[in-house]
Amino acid sequence: MKYMIGIDSGGTKTEAIVYDLSGKEQQRVVTGFGNMLVDYDQGLANIKAAIQMVLTDRQVADCQLLVLGLAGIDSGGLKEVLMKELAYFQVPLVLLNDGQLAHYALLQGEAGVLVIAGTGSICLGMKQNEWYRVGGWGHLFGDEGSGYYIGKLAIQQALAEYDTQSKYSLLTERLFSYFNLTTTLELVKKAYQLTKDQIAALAKEVAELAHKDPTAAAILTKAGMKLGEEVEKLITKMKLENQLVKIGLNGSVVENNELVRQAFFAYLKNCSFEPEYVQKESSSAKGAYYFYQKNGAEEK
Amino acid sequence: MKYMIGIDSGGTKTEAIVYDLSGKEQQRVVTGFGNMLVDYDQGLANIKAAIQMVLTDRQVADCQLLVLGLAGIDSGGLKEVLMKELAYFQVPLVLLNDGQLAHYALLQGEAGVLVIAGTGSICLGMKQNEWYRVGGWGHLFGDEGSGYYIGKLAIQQALAEYDTQSKYSLLTERLFSYFNLTTTLELVKKAYQLTKDQIAALAKEVAELAHKDPTAAAILTKAGMKLGEEVEKLITKMKLENQLVKIGLNGSVVENNELVRQAFFAYLKNCSFEPEYVQKESSSAKGAYYFYQKNGAEEK
Repeated sequence: MKYMIGIDSGGTKTEAIVYDLSGKEQQRVVTGFGNMLVDYDQGLANIKAAIQMVLTDRQVADCQLLVLGLAGIDSGGLKEVLMKELAYFQVPLVLLNDGQLAHYALLQGEAGVLVIAGTGSICLGMKQNEWYRVGGWGHLFGDEGSGYYIGKLAIQQALAEYDTQSKYSLLTERLFSYFNLTTTLELVKKAYQLTKDQIAALAKEVAELAHKDPTAAAILTKAGMKLGEEVEKLITKMKLENQLVKIGLNGSVVENNELVRQAFFAYLKNCSFEPEYVQKESSSAKGAYYFYQKNGAEEK
Repeated sequence: MKYMIGIDSGGTKTEAIVYDLSGKEQQRVVTGFGNMLVDYDQGLANIKAAIQMVLTDRQVADCQLLVLGLAGIDSGGLKEVLMKELAYFQVPLVLLNDGQLAHYALLQGEAGVLVIAGTGSICLGMKQNEWYRVGGWGHLFGDEGSGYYIGKLAIQQALAEYDTQSKYSLLTERLFSYFNLTTTLELVKKAYQLTKDQIAALAKEVAELAHKDPTAAAILTKAGMKLGEEVEKLITKMKLENQLVKIGLNGSVVENNELVRQAFFAYLKNCSFEPEYVQKESSSAKGAYYFYQKNGAEEK
């Protein structure tokens, strides 16, 4: 049986899925994290292990293509190194970044925009095999509309209430109880000890309060509008005004947070293009199938 | 001779100055950093060494008061511990945070507002021996209008130009040459390796370009207005509307950056109080003299 392999490799796990030529899933294996910027050797070992596992009972010659999506693949010569490392398996290889693979999975190789908003955020566009991006500059300088952005606004809201001696909002009271603290000074001290992920996790607390706390609702609305602005910039950059544009949504914030989604949709309604929203695929690895369908075994 | 000791202890040095009862400087010694949150033992040792040095040739009984200003003194029981540690010297002690000591030095114990904007920023007010603050929440959640804030906006400007495919501003070109880089992706990678101080140091580059680059000028104006907003919040909090309010300025950004200052002054001109700007004292340690003049040897 001829087949292809899609590998979605990220900060927590590496997922390798085998698809037949009709796109039907045949096998799925999961190994450890694949972020080679965090730990080169262990990341590479996890990726190699996943490939080895799916090739064990298959004819290597039947593998039409292996598409690997990996965070950080565009930086510092990683792509070239990895091409050599994986040449060992003797299968046709394409290396994309994780966002590009997710773009293929959701938009099935068609032109359009992928909005990723989980812990961080980025907008990624493809048109005529050219890639475009807006945002995704990380928590210090970018990631507008992301979970981190929402968590940061929640903390800043508490600080603003202290600064102006306002009555504490429900949101601020929730932050105190969430961290088991009683004062704003304790909260800010705690906040500086949190990881990026832990600050982003506050987005869930904000969402849970939004139906009864206008402060929380306003933060989510702001995040949704920010994401809308980012998409609008990307549309301009890609010169897609006045066209029908597929918009894929990926990540906990844009998939699950209703107020963020509403504000995002409302913002794009007033932009100069017509959005067509695309449902999420179950795994980014499926991008390998659509990549093959569109490009064959060659990166474009 | 009766005297008092003022000690300004910060992240780089500890400065102890002896004043006579007329406020005339009699002696000045400098030891190493005194930030006990960074290194408790070494910070404490540097502070003790400074005190020891000024007490060596003096009658301890003649010391009317020792006022120590220390960053972070308000957090985690540090004040209580330090009171015990310094009781050894058998002189009347007052412990303030570094901002409070600077407030005394500039405003000579009078009510009013101190604006500190260097690497970070904070607005500190005193009225009827009560302290008030706005901002000062650190680089992740606050420090509006600070050097870090200006440096961050400069980096974000470069990223925005990349996102929108604009022609690079002079400011962005300066960032590239300053770091000896050629691409935006290199710049953002570099930016995440910079310390807080290094990002704040970019404020100087922004200032140097402001006369010929509107982008740089706009960033400085925004910083000045932000500082103005912070002061306005503090005025409201302190209920000083419609009054004459002394405003002390401290830190490289508000002391030296002309565009920031202009925007700051312009903003406050339209607020509902009358600012009276106060020149900087040469050392915060002088705050000890004004503290004594106002309060005697007792903390209020």
